[in-house]
Amino acid sequence: MNGGDVLCRTLLDNQIDTCFANPGTSEMHFVASLDKMSDMRCVLCLFEGVATGAADGYARMTGRPAATLLHTGPGLANGLANLHNARRARTPMLNIIGDHADSHIAYDAPLTTDIEALARPVSDWVGRTASAVSVQADAMQAIQQARQAPGQVSVLVFPADAAWGDSQYQAGQFVAAPQPDDPATEAIQAAVEAIRSDQRCLLLLGGAALRHQPLLEAARIAESHGVGVLAEQGNARMQQGMGTWAPDRIEYGVDGAVRQLAEYDVIILVGARAPVAFFKYPGKPHQIAPPEATILTLSQPSENALEALRAVRTDLGIAASLELAPMQALAVTPVAEAAPLNAMAVVQIAAATLPDHTIVCDEAISHSTPYGKHLRFAKPHDLLQLTGGAIGIGPSLAVGAAIACPDRQVLSLQADGAGAYAVQALWTQAREGLNVVTIILANQRYQSLYDELIHLGHGEPGRNARNMLNLDGPALDWVSIAQGFGARGMRVHTGEALQKALVAAYAEAGPVVIEAVI
Amino acid sequence: MNGGDVLCRTLLDNQIDTCFANPGTSEMHFVASLDKMSDMRCVLCLFEGVATGAADGYARMTGRPAATLLHTGPGLANGLANLHNARRARTPMLNIIGDHADSHIAYDAPLTTDIEALARPVSDWVGRTASAVSVQADAMQAIQQARQAPGQVSVLVFPADAAWGDSQYQAGQFVAAPQPDDPATEAIQAAVEAIRSDQRCLLLLGGAALRHQPLLEAARIAESHGVGVLAEQGNARMQQGMGTWAPDRIEYGVDGAVRQLAEYDVIILVGARAPVAFFKYPGKPHQIAPPEATILTLSQPSENALEALRAVRTDLGIAASLELAPMQALAVTPVAEAAPLNAMAVVQIAAATLPDHTIVCDEAISHSTPYGKHLRFAKPHDLLQLTGGAIGIGPSLAVGAAIACPDRQVLSLQADGAGAYAVQALWTQAREGLNVVTIILANQRYQSLYDELIHLGHGEPGRNARNMLNLDGPALDWVSIAQGFGARGMRVHTGEALQKALVAAYAEAGPVVIEAVI
Repeated sequence: MNGGDVLCRTLLDNQIDTCFANPGTSEMHFVASLDKMSDMRCVLCLFEGVATGAADGYARMTGRPAATLLHTGPGLANGLANLHNARRARTPMLNIIGDHADSHIAYDAPLTTDIEALARPVSDWVGRTASAVSVQADAMQAIQQARQAPGQVSVLVFPADAAWGDSQYQAGQFVAAPQPDDPATEAIQAAVEAIRSDQRCLLLLGGAALRHQPLLEAARIAESHGVGVLAEQGNARMQQGMGTWAPDRIEYGVDGAVRQLAEYDVIILVGARAPVAFFKYPGKPHQIAPPEATILTLSQPSENALEALRAVRTDLGIAASLELAPMQALAVTPVAEAAPLNAMAVVQIAAATLPDHTIVCDEAISHSTPYGKHLRFAKPHDLLQLTGGAIGIGPSLAVGAAIACPDRQVLSLQADGAGAYAVQALWTQAREGLNVVTIILANQRYQSLYDELIHLGHGEPGRNARNMLNLDGPALDWVSIAQGFGARGMRVHTGEALQKALVAAYAEAGPVVIEAVI
Repeated sequence: MNGGDVLCRTLLDNQIDTCFANPGTSEMHFVASLDKMSDMRCVLCLFEGVATGAADGYARMTGRPAATLLHTGPGLANGLANLHNARRARTPMLNIIGDHADSHIAYDAPLTTDIEALARPVSDWVGRTASAVSVQADAMQAIQQARQAPGQVSVLVFPADAAWGDSQYQAGQFVAAPQPDDPATEAIQAAVEAIRSDQRCLLLLGGAALRHQPLLEAARIAESHGVGVLAEQGNARMQQGMGTWAPDRIEYGVDGAVRQLAEYDVIILVGARAPVAFFKYPGKPHQIAPPEATILTLSQPSENALEALRAVRTDLGIAASLELAPMQALAVTPVAEAAPLNAMAVVQIAAATLPDHTIVCDEAISHSTPYGKHLRFAKPHDLLQLTGGAIGIGPSLAVGAAIACPDRQVLSLQADGAGAYAVQALWTQAREGLNVVTIILANQRYQSLYDELIHLGHGEPGRNARNMLNLDGPALDWVSIAQGFGARGMRVHTGEALQKALVAAYAEAGPVVIEAVI
């Protein structure tokens, strides 16, 4: 058995049975090994960022890592932006990066690169297989790192000679599924004391705190003790929709975020980080919590958020049976169905037509906030968001989510500018027959950057600014782009047409891209 | 004047008047500065790899750096693969990477990344502007590094507060154009002695040795002293076509390359590196020169190759007027015009119809060698190749070459798999109205990887290998992809149709993509 075979078996032993791949020459022995193992599902991505984004989406939904297979330093480089997002999402992921045979590196052949140096800034763990003999041990370590609770980005550099050389394999070796740590008793006590005091408290939820059960626990605490609850700005996975109690999210813009936190004396973090401004602006703060506020950590991301919230609720003497006030539905403006579309109409129609248990991938950028507000009153769904600010993950995240959950619908809410970064994901959606419906909000500009330029007081953009912020001249034709990659494309200009298109798209198998011209 | 304004002026003072950009929020003050300077041409790229690939193509043709403008670590990450290629091409390039305001980095906001750590593995120089006050000095240093002969990849991290802060500017500061060093007298003597001896000598040419004049000097030495001449495998820029004497290139495959060098006792490097195998294979060598061969360096890449070859020719007593034997045209099989296309027919028709002084960007991968052979008998042209093995540069290289030389035709010879990595370049071709004709050799597979798998003796590929190496199911529809990004697309199945399509494409303004189904 060669090293490639041993790596395959070690992955399968650890329930890593999906590999998002864009291989090259140095991975050919490993490709040959993968070809022998029919339990492994190899999903080709035409660009490496699709592979890493898909592995992120897959793990957010399954809780288990997928593998990626990328080719040397440049192949990894193309996947780095989504590793950055995955690390910020605390996603478990195992990246296998093929390299030259070890002895060849000193010759500095054209593709030679310092792969570890490229990986480190966006990874939690980086290792290299020293030789074919150590493949199983090295792979076990890389998997163990990926599965560190709540999840880590793990990179294993795998030289060609480690794949082709004779290796050893011992059956029955596997890494135990990670268990979150128990929350600290002192942390629970401190939170309870703060809530019992006359200080105004906020529960700031992130990570695993954003699932149905912990959200209900937070809601009971809020209901009985007048505590505020917010979710972080961008979340790896948040369960929401009717029947689930859903908090607001911290706003992207610093002014709005500061306003949201202004009333609180104590910020209690539950799987969340202390909130900071997404960007620094002249004369505006770095941190969005009031400077005099106390920040308490109830549970770390690696700890059990549900247990932490349950313990706080119990210590406060709140019954698990506490009735929650019904969520107040938004007063939704009726959509003028035959009128030209605008962004709000798209948001309302998307929410109103959402199938039960859809996985919603949100890369709507300037329209994420209204989408989020309306989706809370849609059918129950999971919402996957941009966690690291590295634009371009949307269509790839949808690939991974759809492969993770073949029985569920995926809806990809996509801004047009962000959608253009890794459009090749549409091909993988088509090839794998994935039930992904994409709504492109086509405003033909980088709207969020326009907003930023206006905030600077720059005035009317001139030729250079328009050139850099507009996506028109020519407009992206998403119907043709979809078709080019093998997906069906539709273009709609009215609410009526969008509604019909969505109903039709959900009814058919395979990916559909709907360009909503606003 | 703020730091952004000073950076713009410093670029313009140094003839850096083209900026391939994909900006984000942290670059907005700099965007505002660029907007004030009408002499700066800002070219939007929808993906950062397009920006870095275009800057490479631009500098290969002008000899001067372009700027790129990218957004924080993830934006740089998306551009790294083509920085790798540019460094291997020894291309002068100045990359400006926007970052958070310096004081905000400690807060680890979502986009925070160690930009310098990401840049270093693929850059010759990496620096950071410490504050607005030092912008001019820092930019001068970054430009000076980019212009180090023959060319370097320079990365300047530019924090948002350095752009918005008050700065100082002194007019009339500029970096002198780089001059190649004189070749060493001893190196010239050693080469002359080797050629005069009874040893079999090879001139291996790279970099600036591949222009018309040095090629003629090499040809005269070859003609009169029976010396062999070869070019490196992948070259940044090579002048060839009828009227220019053109050597063969070293083959990509290790067996063929070893055969090409087997007969030589002395390898004389002229702006080239000692040749090594592109990949290491079990039982095959690292180096492709015979182990007992002597390797002499006549000129380093930073030295004047033309002067080196001229000095050798003069010392050998060869007249500058020496008549060269006419190049023997290939015995070209007539193209069966109405017959279905095959790769060789595409190659022959592309060479036969090539307009005078075309810039040819070669990312044909498995078909680069036949293209190269036939193009030598086409009209005079410049050939730009993949230098670092990081697949996906073709359409972006074409953007830069076309912007550098608006009066010349660009022909992009593109493999379909490689073409899919950064297809967004077609949009920039369309928006800027660039005269780029792309021939997609559509074989619907990663042919070079298929060849590698067969060489391993793997036998008939199974499901997983087919999944990872085939691009069918669905086939990429390049006509729709082109149209989606605003370019015209055509599909041809016969030689006759290809010929007609090429003639039509060259006659019209703006980009055309021709999918040649083989």
